[in-house]
Order: sequence, then C-alpha cells, then structure tokens
Amino acid sequence: MDSILSLCRRRGFIFQSSEIYGGVAGFFDYGPIGCELKRNIKDLWWRDVVRRREDIVGIDCSTIMHPQVWKASGHADGFADPMVDCRESKMRYRADQLYFAPVSVDGKMIGYISQLEDVGMQTLAEESAQRLKAKRKIQGKMDPIQLRTIAEANAEELAQIPSPTTGNPGTLTAPRQFNLMFTTHIGAVADAASMAYLRPETAQGIFVNFKNIVDSTRVKLPFGIAQIGRAYRNEITPRNFTFRSREFEQMELEYFIAPDADWQSFHREWVETRLHWYLSLGIRRELLGQEVHAMEKLAHYARACTDITFAYPFGIQEIEGIAARGNFDLTCHQQCSGKSLEFFDEDTQQRYLPHVIEPSAGVDRVFLAVLCSAYDEDELNGERRTVLRLSPQLAPIKAGIFPLQKNKPELVQLSRSIFENLQRHWNVHWDATGAIGRRYRRMDEVGTPYAITVDFDSLENGTVTLRERDSAEQSRVAIAELVDALREKLD
Amino acid sequence: MDSILSLCRRRGFIFQSSEIYGGVAGFFDYGPIGCELKRNIKDLWWRDVVRRREDIVGIDCSTIMHPQVWKASGHADGFADPMVDCRESKMRYRADQLYFAPVSVDGKMIGYISQLEDVGMQTLAEESAQRLKAKRKIQGKMDPIQLRTIAEANAEELAQIPSPTTGNPGTLTAPRQFNLMFTTHIGAVADAASMAYLRPETAQGIFVNFKNIVDSTRVKLPFGIAQIGRAYRNEITPRNFTFRSREFEQMELEYFIAPDADWQSFHREWVETRLHWYLSLGIRRELLGQEVHAMEKLAHYARACTDITFAYPFGIQEIEGIAARGNFDLTCHQQCSGKSLEFFDEDTQQRYLPHVIEPSAGVDRVFLAVLCSAYDEDELNGERRTVLRLSPQLAPIKAGIFPLQKNKPELVQLSRSIFENLQRHWNVHWDATGAIGRRYRRMDEVGTPYAITVDFDSLENGTVTLRERDSAEQSRVAIAELVDALREKLD
Repeated sequence: MDSILSLCRRRGFIFQSSEIYGGVAGFFDYGPIGCELKRNIKDLWWRDVVRRREDIVGIDCSTIMHPQVWKASGHADGFADPMVDCRESKMRYRADQLYFAPVSVDGKMIGYISQLEDVGMQTLAEESAQRLKAKRKIQGKMDPIQLRTIAEANAEELAQIPSPTTGNPGTLTAPRQFNLMFTTHIGAVADAASMAYLRPETAQGIFVNFKNIVDSTRVKLPFGIAQIGRAYRNEITPRNFTFRSREFEQMELEYFIAPDADWQSFHREWVETRLHWYLSLGIRRELLGQEVHAMEKLAHYARACTDITFAYPFGIQEIEGIAARGNFDLTCHQQCSGKSLEFFDEDTQQRYLPHVIEPSAGVDRVFLAVLCSAYDEDELNGERRTVLRLSPQLAPIKAGIFPLQKNKPELVQLSRSIFENLQRHWNVHWDATGAIGRRYRRMDEVGTPYAITVDFDSLENGTVTLRERDSAEQSRVAIAELVDALREKLD
Repeated sequence: MDSILSLCRRRGFIFQSSEIYGGVAGFFDYGPIGCELKRNIKDLWWRDVVRRREDIVGIDCSTIMHPQVWKASGHADGFADPMVDCRESKMRYRADQLYFAPVSVDGKMIGYISQLEDVGMQTLAEESAQRLKAKRKIQGKMDPIQLRTIAEANAEELAQIPSPTTGNPGTLTAPRQFNLMFTTHIGAVADAASMAYLRPETAQGIFVNFKNIVDSTRVKLPFGIAQIGRAYRNEITPRNFTFRSREFEQMELEYFIAPDADWQSFHREWVETRLHWYLSLGIRRELLGQEVHAMEKLAHYARACTDITFAYPFGIQEIEGIAARGNFDLTCHQQCSGKSLEFFDEDTQQRYLPHVIEPSAGVDRVFLAVLCSAYDEDELNGERRTVLRLSPQLAPIKAGIFPLQKNKPELVQLSRSIFENLQRHWNVHWDATGAIGRRYRRMDEVGTPYAITVDFDSLENGTVTLRERDSAEQSRVAIAELVDALREKLD
C-alpha cells in the first residue's frame, strides 16, 4: 500500500485536499493523471450501463435536494452511527470500532483496557494488559483477553474503561446516535426551516424523478435509471486512503421490474453483469470476490444483497453492492409526497409500484481497486521497474511518442507530426528528454500501454517502433497504419 | 423561453429538483436527454482544453476544502451581497434588485413605492404610484417616477419605503452584507472550528494544488490547469431558470504565464480561442458577443476582464469570463499557508509566482445557450415542427434507426442488426412505433441529426435511407458504409 500511496503522490494521481493548509481528513483531490483515470472509469461505466443499453437511461441530479427526500428515505432519522465521546479529550469514536476487555490475573480482575479497531488489535490489547499488570505490580498468569465492542459495555463497565486518548477511566459516554449527513442551510436564514442535507447517496435522486422519467420518455418495464455523481458522508473516522472518505463519487443504477417478475433471476443477472464489468476493466480475477449478505442481517425491506469485493492491501472490502430492494423506496416517496408514483403497464393495463434491483458502486473504490490490481514491480534488462498494468481502455495516457534523439531536427519533426495526428484521437504524450529507457519507464509507471519511437529507420522507411508496456516487446509499424493499429487496441 | 421550458420538461432535458416535494428554488436535475447533452458539452471542453493540448493538464478537487482556502481567497470576508430584510415578513432582498421611488403629485410628496427588479419595472412602479395616489384620494398630475436602488436610500427614506411583501412602510432594514457561501460542519461537533464551506468556484482548488502539480508533472511555463466540477452559491433570488442557480457546474482554466510575459497578448488569445470554441459548438454567431469590463470596475488586483456573452430570451448575459488576474491568488495562498508556491524557471534560473489568465465558464449557462441557439420551429410538408439544430457532436442521440414497418420481421431484424452495430460506437435510438413521419419528428425535437430508415429496398440492395435533420433531405447509403459515413459526420 505504501508503494501505491507514494506513486499516487509522485506522479499526480491523488493529493490530500488543501494540503498546503494541512489537509482536511477524508477529502482528496485527483491530479492530472488521476483525474484522467477516474474519467475513464466513469466513461466506461456510462458507456456500458447507459449508452450501450436500450433499457437504461441516465440522469444527473443536484447534490442538495429537498430535506423531505431524506425524511422519506429514512436517512434523516436512521442514517446514523452509534458514537462514544471522551468527555475529557472531546474525541469521538465509532462504537463499533472501539473495543474493551477486562484484564484479570489468576482469575482476579485488575482493571480494563480499551483498544481501537486495527488489524493487530488482539496483540496490541494484550500488550496494554501487560502494561496495566506491570503498572499495578501484580504477579501471576494473565487470563486470556477477550475484546468486545464498547456498544456491549454496561454502565458499570463504562465507568471503568479507560479513554483511548488519555488512558483515564470514567470519561467515556454511552453510545449515542450521530447522523452521517452533512447539513447546510438554503437562503438567508439559518433556521430549522432552511436546513438541507448534502446527499449521502445518489440513488434517491433517481427515485424522486421516477415519474418525471416515465412521463418524458417511453420506457417500458423492465428499465433502469443510472446516475454518476458526488455524495457526502460525515464519517467520524475516515480511513484507508480514498476507500472511506467524506466526499466521494457513486455510480448507481436502479433497475425497475414488475412486482410479479422473477426478482431472484434479475438479481443474479446483475451480479453476473457487474462482476463481468470489473473483469472487463482488467482487474485481476483472483482479487475479486462475492459476499452474499445473510438474510437476518438485511434491512427489513431488503430481499437480498450481494457485494462484489476486492482484496485491497488493507483487507477484503466491498466495491459494489447489488441489492434487491422491493418497492420500499418508491412506496416511501409516494406516501411522503402524496403524489402517485405508480407505473401504468400498457400490456396488462395495471397500475403498480415497480420493484427494484440496485447495483451501487463507489468510483473512488473502483479507482483504488484498479490501481492496486495493476500495480506491479518487475525486472527489465536487469533493472527494477514500477509498472501499472492498466487495461488500454483505462490508461490515462494511451501512448508516448519519442524521437530517439532530441538534437536531430528530422526526428523531432517527424515525431511531432505523428504526435499531433494521434492527439486528435487520444490523450498521448510527447517526450524528447532523457535516455529512451528512462522515457519508457516514466510511461510504464503511469500505465501507458504503448510507446512509439521515431528513429533513423523511420526517416528511411516510414515505420516506427511500437513498444508494448507489459512485455516490453517491440515491433515495427508503418506510420500510415498507426491510427488504425492503435484504434484496434484502444477502442 | 416558454417553448424551451416546455420542451425541457416534455422531453426530459431538465426537471426542477425534488419536484414531487414542491421543488427547491435554484436546484435542478438533468433528465435522460439533458444529461447526455451536458456530458457532451463537458467532454468537448475537456477534449479541446485538456486532451488536445500539451500545455494544459486536468485536476478534480473535492468540493469541500479547508476553510482557510476561502479566507485566503477573500471569499470568506468579501464574497457577499448587500441584503435588505423585511422585519415583519422575514423576507430578504438583494439591495441591488430592490428599487424605490418617492411619489409626488403637482410637486408635493405623497409617499414612497417599492419595486423588485423586473423587465417592466418602470411601468409596474408607475402603476403602484397611481394606486397610492388613488388610495390617498389625491387629485392632480403625478410627477415622473424615478427609481433608485434601496442601497441609495438614506435613513429617513428607509423609514418610509414600503416592504414589497406587506406594503407596510418602516419594516425594511438598512442593507447588510450576506455571504453567498453555503456552510457546513465536518466531524461530530458543530462549532466554529469544524465549519467548512461548499466551494463557490472551482478555481481555488487549482491554485492550492499549483505546487503539487508542478512537483508531480514536468510542466513548463506557460501552462494551464483545468477543472470541471460543481460549485455552490447561496443566491437569495435564483432566477432565469438554470442561468442563476444555487448549485451549478463550472469549467475553469487557470493559464499560468511568466511575470514578464506579454499578458495582454495571452489574454487576447484566450478570448479568441474561447469565442472560437463556442462557434465550434454550433452556437449562432449573431447571438454571441463580447463585453470588455471597464478598468475602473475591475477588482483591485485584476488587470483586464472580457466576458463572452449570449443573447438569451431574458437578455444578454455572460456565459464565460476571461480575466487577467496577475499573481493575486498564488500570492494570497502563499502568504496565508506560509508555504512557498514559487515556480523555478530552469531556463532563467529564477524563482517567481506566475501570473494567470482565467477563462471561466458555466456549464449550465452554456447548456442553456446551446438550447436557445438550436431551438427552432419551421414548417415541413405543410406541418409545423419543433427542431433542435444541435451540432452532431453535441446531439444527445446521434441517430434514430427505424424499420419502415414494425410488422415485417425482415425489416425489424435488419434494423435491429444495424442498431446494435451502431450502438457500439454512439448513443443511438431504435424505434418501430408509429408513422415514420412522427418518428422523425420525435428525433428532430431532441436534436438527433440523422435518421436511418430500413425499407424494402434495403432487403434487396443493402442500402438504407439516411435523413438529415435540418434539411430533411434523404439519401441512400450502403449499410456496410454506415459506420464510416457517420464517423465522418459525428467525430
């Protein structure tokens, strides 16, 4: 992970937001190379989910909506994490990420330790317990440490559990609900009536526009409405780089089906389709997985949910969830708005609220998965190189064009004309500086799949060297055929 | 304008945000056709400003940044409109949009009227004055009504000017500054330390990343950094549809030049380049204009500013401003952050803060200009039609593919195979329902430049009818040559 973070900074993939002012936790900026890669991911999703499908249309909603939207969706009341405060340090912790354990020696309780969630937290907790034992100058054999989350602590225990910041016991509050939506105020007066939320997901914009879209297009069930856009969650502990941030982008699809349709079959199909999409991006199959949510852990209205997961360096995590949500959302908005959201089925002459399958992906999570999957270090001609094995479609720069020497005007001139021609079609890069090997390496590191070198033979016979990134193999291609050759590889 | 608004709703270009909940003033959603058009505008800007230029790189920053960014830029203190409150109704008005006038009859003052800014406000004000005269039962000849903004009223006048809402005098406050930035809070505690702003422009994200980009790329002056993204302004009176909204998208470029460069020449060049871009979108030349800001009206640091304007149905308004800003922004951020933002010029071996030319456009404004410019009604075969004369590059749908009759399987099958082939390249639409003339009209209305009809001749000789939207002229094209023929017209 450290190598990836370092590459991100060094080559302009991702910077911390407002870095010169010390940064803001959970906010990130995509630099020149990063924003091209992010655009390519979003464009491919839009192409495959919207433009190449007859049954799906797009939408682009404002990020601030009417507050009633979030009342109806349940987010205003329910979108909350239980939090614990330290009254002394004013620090706040997610109750499901703060652990505690009683410490006993030879069966006798000597106190409590607290521990923040971490990969090695069992070991860390045992070390804390040893320190407590040493501090109390107690001899004997320590009983096994059994960590539980603070949410399971009773009042008596809470009074004795030390704060993770100060180490002092008795300063932690009981867990309280904390809403994850950012709030703001619209208009001049900052009172309850003017309060609004930054959307915590893009999906609700789709549901509240369901009727508008049915009325202004000629969609027939089953059909989908898709959206890419920013969403905001006021995470208390943003972490794992861009994986859990406070401002992020989503790519969400609501796929509406008739109430009597075979939803299991649609759900299965979407899980397959989406998994296949990640493979089409070139993400390594062995890093992708599926996790089926247990029925008893689903929300009351949900019928099924399957996550597509990716094995990040910091653990296996969800990149996309595919949920079968019944007609819960449309029902809520119909009730709360008092407007009928029913669909009129011309074939059956029936009116009903459609049910929905929701494939919902995080752009920044896909970005990070693509980067982790593509990152590699190998040896080439006896030298170590860093190479991003990005699929040509995702690559921020499609080709580097190099004159073999920069002090030969004929080489420079010919390479410039090739560059200018290719630039009409793709994002390409011209570079005349440094040894040719170093220029190749600079391109390998940002995942550029092809390098085109103009040498003295080019002047003679109108061909160039086309080098392929992963194999470093080189072939000669006629300049006149370059656009067609690249189009076949890139489009 | 009414025809355009009606088209926007009817065909799914733009909806009011959260319409089923009564809407939120100043927020809009782009529907299936609208979001394709908006994407095309942004993609063309990105292609022409970033991907096809060697001297410009892109960036994509978070919309929430460190609050110090806005302190340094001057927005936290200065980005404000003077506002007047009505103490009784709690309504708030922009001081430059609220007018008043004394009313006198035969030279004798009988009271004041107030009037909100409006196209016909002089007439409305005179009617108000007549009503006041009638109410006071005063005979005689009314003196001319001379409207002034409320900002020019003295205390004595303020006490007598009636509130525009209630009509009662003495309830308006003197103008006070009201900051236009939306605020929110990051983290769990909503206090001054956690306050943050939604960015009111994308430009500052570029300035605070200036050093990151110089360090992670190999840019040399002059070079530009470009960004497309949302911005937010808490306008008190959003108006003119999507022209002045509270949430909008910007396409901004900061083009950095050496301090001793000929900035006038760079500025002139950017005004030309940008104007040419709007023409390349197919916007009618006669609707575009330029407005050079008078020197005395510029901000103290600004050296020049030229607006590119568009003649909307509601008046001539700015769609893009091209400003020469000196090194004001980098200087402010360098001072405020304490970090050097100087550029090291390898050629001259000097360090300095570059100066900047800033072409800044509003996506939603360009969208509306494109729509207004393209909207037309004409007569075709004796029938009135609505047609959007969009350039093929901008068109949301590139071609409609129609079987002449839907009950002939051979026609349906062949048209489907053509559709599926074209869909791999572009957003195209297949439609088998209704008379062929009606299908053409539905495509004309959303600006689809080409319609392809599969008829009985197609089955015989492998050609189709290609109909051009504007002229309605038809020609026969071989199916095998369709992709190449369209690529020439569309790419």
